Amino acid sequence: MASTPTVFRDALVVTQDAERRVVRADVRVENGRFVHVGERAPSEGAEVVDARTFAIVPGFVNAHTHVAMAPLRGLADDRDLGGFLERLFAVDAKRTEADVEAGALAGVAEMLLSGTTSFLDLYYFEDGVARAVDALGARGFLGWAVLDPELTTQKGAPLDNAKAFIQRWSGNARVQPLVAPQGVYVCNEATWLGAKAIAETNHTLVHYHLSETRREVHEHEKKTGLRPPLWLDKIGFLGPGQVAAHGVWMMRREIETLARRSVGVAHCPSSNMKLATGGVAPVREMRECGIAVGLGTDSVASNNSLSMLREMHIAGLLQKHQTWDTSVLPAQVLLDMATIEGARLLGRAADLGSVEVGKRADFSLVRLDHPTLLPARPAAIVSHLAYSASEEAFDSVFVAGEPVVRGRELVRGSWPEIRSAAEAAADALWRAVP
Amino acid sequence: MASTPTVFRDALVVTQDAERRVVRADVRVENGRFVHVGERAPSEGAEVVDARTFAIVPGFVNAHTHVAMAPLRGLADDRDLGGFLERLFAVDAKRTEADVEAGALAGVAEMLLSGTTSFLDLYYFEDGVARAVDALGARGFLGWAVLDPELTTQKGAPLDNAKAFIQRWSGNARVQPLVAPQGVYVCNEATWLGAKAIAETNHTLVHYHLSETRREVHEHEKKTGLRPPLWLDKIGFLGPGQVAAHGVWMMRREIETLARRSVGVAHCPSSNMKLATGGVAPVREMRECGIAVGLGTDSVASNNSLSMLREMHIAGLLQKHQTWDTSVLPAQVLLDMATIEGARLLGRAADLGSVEVGKRADFSLVRLDHPTLLPARPAAIVSHLAYSASEEAFDSVFVAGEPVVRGRELVRGSWPEIRSAAEAAADALWRAVP
Repeated sequence: MASTPTVFRDALVVTQDAERRVVRADVRVENGRFVHVGERAPSEGAEVVDARTFAIVPGFVNAHTHVAMAPLRGLADDRDLGGFLERLFAVDAKRTEADVEAGALAGVAEMLLSGTTSFLDLYYFEDGVARAVDALGARGFLGWAVLDPELTTQKGAPLDNAKAFIQRWSGNARVQPLVAPQGVYVCNEATWLGAKAIAETNHTLVHYHLSETRREVHEHEKKTGLRPPLWLDKIGFLGPGQVAAHGVWMMRREIETLARRSVGVAHCPSSNMKLATGGVAPVREMRECGIAVGLGTDSVASNNSLSMLREMHIAGLLQKHQTWDTSVLPAQVLLDMATIEGARLLGRAADLGSVEVGKRADFSLVRLDHPTLLPARPAAIVSHLAYSASEEAFDSVFVAGEPVVRGRELVRGSWPEIRSAAEAAADALWRAVP
Repeated sequence: MASTPTVFRDALVVTQDAERRVVRADVRVENGRFVHVGERAPSEGAEVVDARTFAIVPGFVNAHTHVAMAPLRGLADDRDLGGFLERLFAVDAKRTEADVEAGALAGVAEMLLSGTTSFLDLYYFEDGVARAVDALGARGFLGWAVLDPELTTQKGAPLDNAKAFIQRWSGNARVQPLVAPQGVYVCNEATWLGAKAIAETNHTLVHYHLSETRREVHEHEKKTGLRPPLWLDKIGFLGPGQVAAHGVWMMRREIETLARRSVGVAHCPSSNMKLATGGVAPVREMRECGIAVGLGTDSVASNNSLSMLREMHIAGLLQKHQTWDTSVLPAQVLLDMATIEGARLLGRAADLGSVEVGKRADFSLVRLDHPTLLPARPAAIVSHLAYSASEEAFDSVFVAGEPVVRGRELVRGSWPEIRSAAEAAADALWRAVP
């Protein structure tokens, strides 16, 4: 069911290719991929769109979130991590697959409307999330959370649930299922290695929380004699195809270990700052060591936005502030982290994350005439994306060449209906907290 | 020329009154002021608006910016303060009153479209800014920058220019002119005291940069033996009606001095972080000492956004991160800083900054059905404003009861025309940099 080819004529293309070229060019999309990026694309058999007033920007990759938590935004603000988790766990125990799906639809809608086309998720009842992704046309990399059987509220053994989830969704065009150990504080050696085995057998990614707080690191070291990354290496867990979220409290040797094992990291600055975890992820060092570092919003319970535009801005501010160096994480690197580096984390740098011939056509049409992109000069466009562009400028968003947002409206879902279901879920869930 | 009274029926009103009540209520606006906030407002002679799907939120006060710099966004990113200023000064020397006006129109439009109704500005050619404010219907507190005559590129003596500017615009309903010493690095004792005399004679505010960088503090101490606030106190400058921007590098005694002299502070976290000034403004301490602390975006050259929504989010994140305390600057305080505390800074707490009977009707209608305000529960609305709401949710904005934005469009100006003039200004100005 190939859709009509489309030629976007004379757009300002933020390619994110190897040379990071920003060029006035035509872009032709066919069978879900870019087939021409350059001067005068052939228009045979194609719908032609005058794109002079738009930038074409690769779809953002949100490298760490819990999208179904949308109805919980504002539920647990301004509390320390203990108080925060207490409220969230009270709600967690009440959640159903139906309200997870309702929440995921709202969260996926919010992401698509801000130019995010791919995201890496960690939660339970992920079938609900998968249906939301499938319905709205996003690209979901969905990790079923696993933890030790005696600690979970899931029905059945978490590892078995993860395996079954992966088998149910493997082969889906938009949903890439995976397994997601929650963290060293709730996963023993068997759980970690069980997750790894599932990933190897099913050729999936592994996603997990790592070294987010001092306390997590301290308690694990007290228990095992090793800080989390070194312990995970010792038990034989670490390896390629893994994405660790946070990676805040790490010593040099831990960073080198992750680099040697080809583990990627999802940096989540807003969440870390809002939860006052104290540390700052050593992004510069990680990048220098060759680690792929993407950007994640984490959930709306701890951010409280799902906008990668805000996340780029904040990531840049935090690293410059922390290092007393304005040149750290310049705008181009921030955009890299939100696009091509995110794709690299997901093992998909060959077909996602940039506007290049042969790649999947996941991209946004961004209004160059929006106030937050003034002046719309080619030399400034990357800066505007990283530091100032508002979500409203993202006029249309495409995944695999198909529109999922057009003129600020969802194409494959009705926002009033999604909203009303998510508000109903919120009504029920907020009642669960003291 | 009184406009028709309007009744907004059944809105979710974020009053920002003394009890910080969030209530479902009717709001009646008449002769530019709120005349009823509560149950069932009388609708005689009034246009009645069904406001059930909206929050009514006080207009934001941007307590420090250089609005006319809009065409310079992205011109000097990721450079240290020296390199940043070098580029900006190269442009400054080329600016004309006409391009300042073109830039100010774009910047004021961007602010109105994100719910900011009042702002405190520091620049030269402020007549251009004043005309932009007057044209678009914002409320501008406009400071003419003064510095020592031998250091300025202004024609004529800066103090005389400031005095003449104040006299030209005094009595204007929307423009409140004032005098703005640039900072201790370019103002000697005579300039500071001359500015104070102008302010006293003309009953205006004084706005200035203070203790933004370590270097500024260090060099002033080397020169005078005193750190800037203590030196300003010693020369007899400090007093009420003054707003100091930044206030980053300050010891306890300096904070106490500002508090004793009733000086307000405009906190500009994004700009400080992006320029890597290293320090963090001691917001908690300042507030504990009784200083009115507002929020400022600074200019788009160093932020690069003019959105007070982003600024609240970032202010909260930075203080929580810095103090390792999630409870510092909770959502309510962030919203206070962006509204009623800003009004207090401007000496206008009695008639701006909240939705209360008798106050000027400066407010926004915020869409409760926007994805970034989900769930739209009264208990979460303050959190959403501080941490997640996107500019797009600000459907309509009113100043003195008159619409200045309606359905995301400027009412009193044409964005395509404003944009085209500002882009032309950018074309000329960007040519000035090496």
